[in-house]
Amino acid sequence: VSRSSLPEPLQSSAAGAFLLEEIREQPDALRRLLSHEAEFADVAAAARERNLVRLVAHGSSDNAASYGVYAFGLLPGWTALRDSISLTVYSGAKLDLTGSTVLALSQSGRTPDVVSYVEHARAGGAFTVAVTNDPDSALGRAAEAILPLGAGPERSVAATKTYLNTVAALALLAAHSAGRGHEFADGIAKVADQIDEVLPGLEAHVAELAVSFAFVGRMFVIGRGTELATAREVALKLLETCRVAAEPMTATAFAHGPVAALDALFPVWAIASKNQNVSVVREAVARARAAGSAVVVTGDAAADLDASYLLPTPEPAIPLLSPLLSVLPGQLFARALALAKGHDPDHPQRLEKVTLAR
Amino acid sequence: VSRSSLPEPLQSSAAGAFLLEEIREQPDALRRLLSHEAEFADVAAAARERNLVRLVAHGSSDNAASYGVYAFGLLPGWTALRDSISLTVYSGAKLDLTGSTVLALSQSGRTPDVVSYVEHARAGGAFTVAVTNDPDSALGRAAEAILPLGAGPERSVAATKTYLNTVAALALLAAHSAGRGHEFADGIAKVADQIDEVLPGLEAHVAELAVSFAFVGRMFVIGRGTELATAREVALKLLETCRVAAEPMTATAFAHGPVAALDALFPVWAIASKNQNVSVVREAVARARAAGSAVVVTGDAAADLDASYLLPTPEPAIPLLSPLLSVLPGQLFARALALAKGHDPDHPQRLEKVTLAR
Repeated sequence: VSRSSLPEPLQSSAAGAFLLEEIREQPDALRRLLSHEAEFADVAAAARERNLVRLVAHGSSDNAASYGVYAFGLLPGWTALRDSISLTVYSGAKLDLTGSTVLALSQSGRTPDVVSYVEHARAGGAFTVAVTNDPDSALGRAAEAILPLGAGPERSVAATKTYLNTVAALALLAAHSAGRGHEFADGIAKVADQIDEVLPGLEAHVAELAVSFAFVGRMFVIGRGTELATAREVALKLLETCRVAAEPMTATAFAHGPVAALDALFPVWAIASKNQNVSVVREAVARARAAGSAVVVTGDAAADLDASYLLPTPEPAIPLLSPLLSVLPGQLFARALALAKGHDPDHPQRLEKVTLAR
Repeated sequence: VSRSSLPEPLQSSAAGAFLLEEIREQPDALRRLLSHEAEFADVAAAARERNLVRLVAHGSSDNAASYGVYAFGLLPGWTALRDSISLTVYSGAKLDLTGSTVLALSQSGRTPDVVSYVEHARAGGAFTVAVTNDPDSALGRAAEAILPLGAGPERSVAATKTYLNTVAALALLAAHSAGRGHEFADGIAKVADQIDEVLPGLEAHVAELAVSFAFVGRMFVIGRGTELATAREVALKLLETCRVAAEPMTATAFAHGPVAALDALFPVWAIASKNQNVSVVREAVARARAAGSAVVVTGDAAADLDASYLLPTPEPAIPLLSPLLSVLPGQLFARALALAKGHDPDHPQRLEKVTLAR
């Protein structure tokens, strides 16, 4: 086998530099988010008068929205749903939005149909909130209230710090809605410190592991509960930067069909955090290994599972904040695997930073 | 290349016989569902007093639930959501369910956590409805009302007629909720006749096409609006019977990352029906073809798109019923491709007919 038949790893210090820099900036980004805590308390007070939370978003922001469903369900006990934008904006459904709080998540604040949804919902009597990294955007102008992400400019096409700050923003808002805002703000500040501590070691471990995945073409990414958001986000990073057909799913959905597809060339990435879901994730991992799959497990319960590779992450002071830590190995792995495959992780083919979705 | 290095197509008349028989039985299954129309009218009347529809299901039933979100949104204008079972059953979230109608979708009626959810929701004041092929099941006993699917026994592990009847049941219930029940019952009866007419020709076309996909290992399946359910169901059929890493997504999600992963060995299956979403699906198909992907398009708007392969399906009398027809090519293709790959589509490895999910 001649050298030229292998993928050429990109060794240039420039390739993936934005992505790495932005992964490393995440602790500071979280601290900047916390400087806006008072705004979160105000929005939570206004949201308390409504009984339904509608999350609207695309891409990484929509992955973060999956976390919101659990954060609002478990903290204030509110029903939150990832609403269909197309149902309202394109298909013209006439839903009663008067009892709803709309949380529109968009890093750029420029996603056209998210802006249209907010305009429609505000006119229809909903309380509309823009959660965005650019308060001066069209989305910021369309909504009644703004929660700034404060992540700072993000130059890599693949979102990292804006994803993390969107998850943290949803945690903080849900916690304030339940009268536990300050406790969660403290917890997020501690998570920022934990990320600073753990990143250097994780970067080294993940880089080693990624090399052995250079020829992988498909993966499943399994999460559950609050970690479904993490699974969706890791799968999207792998799709866009590594061109791997990575499909996210809950541990339960995995058992309802996808498990049949596995073989030794079809690895699985699983996220296991210390909560009520860990036994079900453990079962899924055992079934995947029995099918011959290599399984990587991340999260603060990783060490309790029997996997091919373990990338444990620190346990946060508050269990609900685990997704802020468990996503880190996936972000780093996607970058390292893209380089191992010879792709520039900062510039995925066919993608722009802002998708003018419709 | 010796013959033995190719996959061995299963030519036995027994392999996939259940699946084919059940695909062909779908028109009769729909007609049996319609014999229960009065029960749908009763449940719709009771549901009218609540303002939120919670759909709970796994696997193919959960795919059908995606259709319910659009059917209830577009017909009575009600908000419907695919609720998280784990949030309530395992994580213990205390949601206010008094204003909700719960539609629990389970072919077998034996899925333990769906039954647990219904028991919890009924005790919490929700109006609970079992939509099941077995009214005498645990789910049937747990719920306040039952809507029988009437699909008859399903022996293939991969669901077909129970999926179709669940979609039709949601259409019929949503239509009755909007005072359009009889119109939709007539429309479904006409669809049953259309399926009878179109199946023989489709079977022949699909079998030819499947052979050229024998070595495909990954696919995207793109739908939007009411056809998101179809995309999810076709992807699940491909995963479980063909062991293809088939990921379903909306046309919008496709543009937010997955498009970067495509290449000439990564085909796309798209569903295009005549509604407000067709232009967005057309764009997605064009982007996939520009990336070198082979693209198969099904649905009643297929002929309007520029694809590699077209498998158009008949236009129903009521546009909202398109998903009852557009799924047929995917069902037949999954069976034919499984045979081409040497798998028995009736007995996917590692799966049982009833998944005792948790």
